[in-house]
Amino acid sequence: MNEIDWAQRRVVIEPRAWAEALGRFREVVGAQHVITDDGALQALGRATVPGARSPSAVVYPGSADEVAEVVKTASVFGIPVWPCSKGRNWGYGSATPFLGDTVLLHLERLNRIIEVNEKLAYAVLEPGVTYRQLKEHLDRHHPSLWCDCSDGPPDGSVVGNALERGLGVTSYNDHFGTLCGLEVVLADGSKVRTGGGEPGHCHTWNTHKWGLGPYLEGLFSQSNLGVVTKAGVWLLRRPEAFVSFTFDLAREVDLPRMIDIIRELTLRGVLAPGTHVVNDICALSVVSQYPRDLVGKCSRLPDDVVREMCARLTVPRWAFGGGIMGTHGQVRAVRAELIRSLRGLGRLTFITDGRVRVLEAFGALVDASKQMPIAHRTLGSIFRALTGKSMELLPLAPKVHSVMKGQPSDYFVRHAYFKSPLPKPEDAHPDRDDVGGIWFAPIVPCTGDHVTAMLELCRPLFEYYAFDFYAALLMQNSRSMIVLMSIFYDKGNTIETARAQTLYDALSAKTRLAGYQTYRTGTQGMAGLYKSAPEFAALVRRLKHALDPAGVLAPGKTPP
Amino acid sequence: MNEIDWAQRRVVIEPRAWAEALGRFREVVGAQHVITDDGALQALGRATVPGARSPSAVVYPGSADEVAEVVKTASVFGIPVWPCSKGRNWGYGSATPFLGDTVLLHLERLNRIIEVNEKLAYAVLEPGVTYRQLKEHLDRHHPSLWCDCSDGPPDGSVVGNALERGLGVTSYNDHFGTLCGLEVVLADGSKVRTGGGEPGHCHTWNTHKWGLGPYLEGLFSQSNLGVVTKAGVWLLRRPEAFVSFTFDLAREVDLPRMIDIIRELTLRGVLAPGTHVVNDICALSVVSQYPRDLVGKCSRLPDDVVREMCARLTVPRWAFGGGIMGTHGQVRAVRAELIRSLRGLGRLTFITDGRVRVLEAFGALVDASKQMPIAHRTLGSIFRALTGKSMELLPLAPKVHSVMKGQPSDYFVRHAYFKSPLPKPEDAHPDRDDVGGIWFAPIVPCTGDHVTAMLELCRPLFEYYAFDFYAALLMQNSRSMIVLMSIFYDKGNTIETARAQTLYDALSAKTRLAGYQTYRTGTQGMAGLYKSAPEFAALVRRLKHALDPAGVLAPGKTPP
Repeated sequence: MNEIDWAQRRVVIEPRAWAEALGRFREVVGAQHVITDDGALQALGRATVPGARSPSAVVYPGSADEVAEVVKTASVFGIPVWPCSKGRNWGYGSATPFLGDTVLLHLERLNRIIEVNEKLAYAVLEPGVTYRQLKEHLDRHHPSLWCDCSDGPPDGSVVGNALERGLGVTSYNDHFGTLCGLEVVLADGSKVRTGGGEPGHCHTWNTHKWGLGPYLEGLFSQSNLGVVTKAGVWLLRRPEAFVSFTFDLAREVDLPRMIDIIRELTLRGVLAPGTHVVNDICALSVVSQYPRDLVGKCSRLPDDVVREMCARLTVPRWAFGGGIMGTHGQVRAVRAELIRSLRGLGRLTFITDGRVRVLEAFGALVDASKQMPIAHRTLGSIFRALTGKSMELLPLAPKVHSVMKGQPSDYFVRHAYFKSPLPKPEDAHPDRDDVGGIWFAPIVPCTGDHVTAMLELCRPLFEYYAFDFYAALLMQNSRSMIVLMSIFYDKGNTIETARAQTLYDALSAKTRLAGYQTYRTGTQGMAGLYKSAPEFAALVRRLKHALDPAGVLAPGKTPP
Repeated sequence: MNEIDWAQRRVVIEPRAWAEALGRFREVVGAQHVITDDGALQALGRATVPGARSPSAVVYPGSADEVAEVVKTASVFGIPVWPCSKGRNWGYGSATPFLGDTVLLHLERLNRIIEVNEKLAYAVLEPGVTYRQLKEHLDRHHPSLWCDCSDGPPDGSVVGNALERGLGVTSYNDHFGTLCGLEVVLADGSKVRTGGGEPGHCHTWNTHKWGLGPYLEGLFSQSNLGVVTKAGVWLLRRPEAFVSFTFDLAREVDLPRMIDIIRELTLRGVLAPGTHVVNDICALSVVSQYPRDLVGKCSRLPDDVVREMCARLTVPRWAFGGGIMGTHGQVRAVRAELIRSLRGLGRLTFITDGRVRVLEAFGALVDASKQMPIAHRTLGSIFRALTGKSMELLPLAPKVHSVMKGQPSDYFVRHAYFKSPLPKPEDAHPDRDDVGGIWFAPIVPCTGDHVTAMLELCRPLFEYYAFDFYAALLMQNSRSMIVLMSIFYDKGNTIETARAQTLYDALSAKTRLAGYQTYRTGTQGMAGLYKSAPEFAALVRRLKHALDPAGVLAPGKTPP
């Protein structure tokens, strides 16, 4: 292995080994699929997190066998490779490696939908397949199937997101939980199918999650023990009936109670865990833009500005939403129970396909009226009188409704541009547009007490370091909630960038000391991995040594 | 490591190492907890499967630290140890080791319920805790919680069953799927907590299944890579409403259609996957006894006898049952959908708490009438006229109803005595009573076609080798079905015993060639493990070597 400077996050590669390996990579994948051009490397070295490193080369294999050959070569020469599926890991480091000067193993050419089994409701995908691609494929060829998606980038990788344990919005929200049957390339270039028998001949490869013997798929999730080149992904049967809903909490003091109610609703099988709770800053970032006059001047919105914006835009302190699927009878029963459980706590709104059509027609009217200020204002007043909502929230309900059906959308991703000097673009791409954002994602037991404790641990640090307190509460399962916080910062401002990293580190340390784990870490947090779990770290190290003795796969993703 | 003869399933232990290790075991756990008495060893070496081996010593540690010390000592001296939780792994080898002459590491003294978290609905258990013990504890102290259970032995280990990936009968039927947070002793005596942070200080240890970084709990399931000494187990919130049901299929030709309907009902979230389908022999083994005059004379019931018994006892060729939980509205909706989906295919019966009370009262009346033949017969006729069922089935509905609520019971286990010369005992213990039985458990995609194909592959072999064709179809999840077959045989008859093993081997080979995997294997099948998955076997071997270089933990449970 070449020399690694962990503190500086750099690796010094011996030039002869580098030249030899690059030559071999070109032979394997074709010279046109090995990129060493500075501009391209810099573009791929951009990420919304601070301290992103550029790779020294990018290799785009076109098949699992090519991946195997590349990885084997890297092992021989001790060249670190950083696999990435689509590179849309925004807020966690995108495509960028932990160590600079390594080879980016970009899997976006592996973008085949190998199989869709309609009867058994699963697909077998390569890691380059995106949510958008899968959804379009299903809509066209298999309308009886729905996929889950996140409210993240539509061009993100379905498999990559699941391996990093991303979350969605339906009962299949735990994306890793819906993977079944992996093909994995190990560091020595050998190929293994987990959970199944003979390649292609084990009928239950993609239906029986655990397989016979030890269940090994977990080894390849949030880790650097292998490169997944194919995965089975379970899909949803299109339901007979579907309704989505939003709930605006009337009084912030009821937040813990609301969390406990949500937990009970999911434990009891009334709601699916794909429920998202959002705070005011989170909602504002989706439906509005940072006041123009404050951009670049003020890293944190003054409280009175937040209050004014919330009042004007009718954004509550806390809200949550979700989808309900089932037979008509089941959906009716769930609606009734939701109404009963949330009575007196705020405003519950159900969104049906019919309501969406009305809202969309109204939206078209509003758009058409933009040149006629009086008509426009009148429509706004009518909308507010009918719904209690500001016109700015008009697009929200249809977008919530469709994402809960597994329809990916750029709409929610654009929240990343909240503080950007750029207006929100149609095709959100925060890396390209130099947007600054870090996800900090601790996970807590799903109780009002724990959620409140976590918010109270973190909010003062956001205030102290002068950043807006964005919080979204995502149920990982009925018993756990991810308290997802985003640090929006100005990447052009080096002092603010350093402060954002300092806030991240302070949040990590404070919450770790209080006994909380993060659910996922980006490159900006990997140096502190498993600080509180030394025995676990030792076990991971033993496994790493057994499967990748040269340590070439994604160094830094597990503790060295 | 001492010399192993894999073909003979024996290990030759060097006498000095043996004496040294035993001495140390006695120091660690106390001399009274190390058993080398021949009678006791032979009792623990009994299993319902052929070829069971007796251990050479049994060690009963009282804590995880003692487990660690025992395992560490075994590693030093190369002495194989076979961990078992309660030893109720009936049909798969019970407590017996794969290799004779090894040390049985019996964990039944580790029987503490460490914690029950009522709000978050989980318990932390040691491996010696039984279903009966957990259920009684919950009923007494935490009535808002239900546990899942299997229809297997009430004194089986909750954790052991989950680690072996046993199945239950509710939406939590996938027992391994409900484990969250393990404490594991590795072969070198080190202790690790998976999925969590610092021992005792990671709040989500038992709520966030995957933890941060690679998910490693799967390594310790159906494997020999560590000894689990503590585990979090998710529990069910007691539902507002509960109804169970049974369905008798009218025509055998509709079996594939029924399977497809069940799959769709579970994929659509109408039914929980804990659904069991049973054939005639399976049902007969539960509600009746092999005709006395044929016991010991005839290893397979003649077809006309089966037909006569089914007609007399009103047992259908195929039936299935399940439970429905939720709000009253949800349960109503599910009932309506079940009626709609199964219309015209057979007889659907719902069982409520009220109906169970009526049946029990009727049962008491029947019992009281036993001395009055005419009254007794009259009651039987009344029962048959009202329900269409024979009096022998009277206890069935209440037992189905209560097991679906997670109430463990000996009732179903007693089916093992179907062919035994003994009457079914109150406390079923097939090992003690020398009952012969092997589970063969291939898993197939949950479609009518695959289930039929599997039945058609196996049935002729059962006929050829002259054994009754017992089949129960257990949904592992919405997409996979375990076609569980039991080979009932007479253990006292060596020729029949050999034939039972031959049948098992023939079933294994035939189904493997057809591309099917078994879901679980007992000691009688471990020699053929992973025959069709050499790359997977190689990966497991590498992990085994990394974690247990001396190979002392449960040799034979993964391929050597």
